[in-house]
Amino acid sequence: MSYIRKQVQRMSAYVPGEQPKAAGLIKLNTNENPYPPSPKVIEAVRAAIDGRMRLYPDPTASALRQKLGKIYGFDADQIVVGNGCDDILNLCVRGFCGECEKLAYFWPSYSLYPVLANIQGATQVELPLDENFQITAHAPLLQKLDGVKLVFITQPNAPSGVWLQRVELQRVIEETKGVVVIDEAYVDFAADNCLDFAREYPNVIVARTFSKAFSFAGMRVGWAAGPRDLIGALDKVKDSYNVNRISQAGAEATLEDWDYFLQNTKKICATRQRITDALAKRGFFVYPSAANFVFARPPAPVTAKQWFDALRERNVLVRWWDADRIRDYARVSIGTDEEMDKFLEASTAIIEKAKR
Amino acid sequence: MSYIRKQVQRMSAYVPGEQPKAAGLIKLNTNENPYPPSPKVIEAVRAAIDGRMRLYPDPTASALRQKLGKIYGFDADQIVVGNGCDDILNLCVRGFCGECEKLAYFWPSYSLYPVLANIQGATQVELPLDENFQITAHAPLLQKLDGVKLVFITQPNAPSGVWLQRVELQRVIEETKGVVVIDEAYVDFAADNCLDFAREYPNVIVARTFSKAFSFAGMRVGWAAGPRDLIGALDKVKDSYNVNRISQAGAEATLEDWDYFLQNTKKICATRQRITDALAKRGFFVYPSAANFVFARPPAPVTAKQWFDALRERNVLVRWWDADRIRDYARVSIGTDEEMDKFLEASTAIIEKAKR
Repeated sequence: MSYIRKQVQRMSAYVPGEQPKAAGLIKLNTNENPYPPSPKVIEAVRAAIDGRMRLYPDPTASALRQKLGKIYGFDADQIVVGNGCDDILNLCVRGFCGECEKLAYFWPSYSLYPVLANIQGATQVELPLDENFQITAHAPLLQKLDGVKLVFITQPNAPSGVWLQRVELQRVIEETKGVVVIDEAYVDFAADNCLDFAREYPNVIVARTFSKAFSFAGMRVGWAAGPRDLIGALDKVKDSYNVNRISQAGAEATLEDWDYFLQNTKKICATRQRITDALAKRGFFVYPSAANFVFARPPAPVTAKQWFDALRERNVLVRWWDADRIRDYARVSIGTDEEMDKFLEASTAIIEKAKR
Repeated sequence: MSYIRKQVQRMSAYVPGEQPKAAGLIKLNTNENPYPPSPKVIEAVRAAIDGRMRLYPDPTASALRQKLGKIYGFDADQIVVGNGCDDILNLCVRGFCGECEKLAYFWPSYSLYPVLANIQGATQVELPLDENFQITAHAPLLQKLDGVKLVFITQPNAPSGVWLQRVELQRVIEETKGVVVIDEAYVDFAADNCLDFAREYPNVIVARTFSKAFSFAGMRVGWAAGPRDLIGALDKVKDSYNVNRISQAGAEATLEDWDYFLQNTKKICATRQRITDALAKRGFFVYPSAANFVFARPPAPVTAKQWFDALRERNVLVRWWDADRIRDYARVSIGTDEEMDKFLEASTAIIEKAKR
């Protein structure tokens, strides 16, 4: 007899992208923002470091929720703050989907969803994306939603970067008897968002993060907005002091330097366009990305694995998965222009070498 | 039909002690350390605040685990770090006790345990403490351990502050077929600890926190040590990036200023003794405390509720629960000597006034 729950014995842990300790690597593997938080944020965080670290943080993150509500058009009680967006996703599982109940997610998408389902002991329903990594809400898909308690949708999707059609999302929302969580981790790099669904539908929660567009991955702040009763359930299952004092102060400060955020995001989107075009010119297939990464397939005879390995040899770290439907591609986070030039140079050399 | 899990609908959230925003209050209600972290820690945390906040933290907190292992005599793979000790406790539930499986805890004790059991949908087994708030491992108690997957024991216990007899704990450990988690949140203020049980028994985990003795409640760092396979299960169910970058750096720095920690703890224990004696002299019943708080019953005719309310009117905030077995007492965190003098003065006035 083992001391460990059967589900936990059987499951594999989520595998995060490598966080290398070696210096000198160009790190394009975990979709971090290549630019630091605004100088005003760094200053505000430093100013928050004092003897009050001995005191518990505000358990409800009320100042941060007020600020978020004002910016995004929600009341504070329609918002919950998490220790990163992953905390929010986990709380949604715990609030809305019990052991042996059905949890659905699209595939390929964020590989944390099946792990969270495994931990909970939920029954997994994999919803297929079509050949363009889009949702096609036709009958076979909608049938799979029968009895589902929770659906995760990443918008824009990862690792493809593709923006999912709103009308198809709406079909899924309307056909689902359970809660639909739209995980908008990358939405700040897109031209649109789905926050309106969280206002209009009684079963929609939108999840967001400070990790990507706000350059705050190291500080772990995410949030979600939606109907009061659903947010209230997340409040019940969250740890009281889930977000520390300094991260709350820092997240508030990022919202106060909105210009920096806009400029930073604009710059990354411009680099993304440049890289998409440059890779296409070199024979890569690149999905149109609404995120801060591109998902690309190298030209034959180079396989994605070979490209990934050869980049690594040249000190460029991108992400590749040995998994169905995605093993022909690698995901490349958008770095600084200088980093991306080195990435392009290395990629060109790899392709050229293979041709010889 | 509701979108929310039945267990979550039915349950009440954990109620943390009030975190008042008003200034001028003497805050003796949530067992925070009255003294700030060491100046070296504040300096180290400030130095860690830079553009690297954009990068994810080390998912395994490896430097911190190495340091903890060295100090407390474990290998790094026998240690897991959490977003506060509450994160660790929650991970233990998720790793070791499924829906409808038995989770046991002593009562009165930390009121988070039943909440965590409710969220998981576990079956709760309440184990009674005797009239001295001690464990008596006699047959009726041991019978209740039958089929239990997880037992929480707080050592020293809260809110009583009482040090539980090791020999009784050992009986519980040996009679339990499941995992025993010894929650040593307050152990740094005690003369002994039970880390040796985590080394010797295959089913014991000891949980610790930086929130109390290390003045780091605002930064959320806890940890646990125990057998490799149990710690491995917690690693699987924990969020990859559960502890942010700055809190990891800060926790490491607290371990490097051990003298400060020892002096600080010694000072709090001295104040605790002084307050215990002073309250007893004024007719209070006070449990002998091995923690950074005292649990005291005021002399008749003053009830604990009246004492609590009257202290509040005098800007002194302590903690009182309207719950079986503990409503005759209030819990008073040990503050600075100056704060405790004001607390004593207020308490004396309240008692004197009631006598007139």
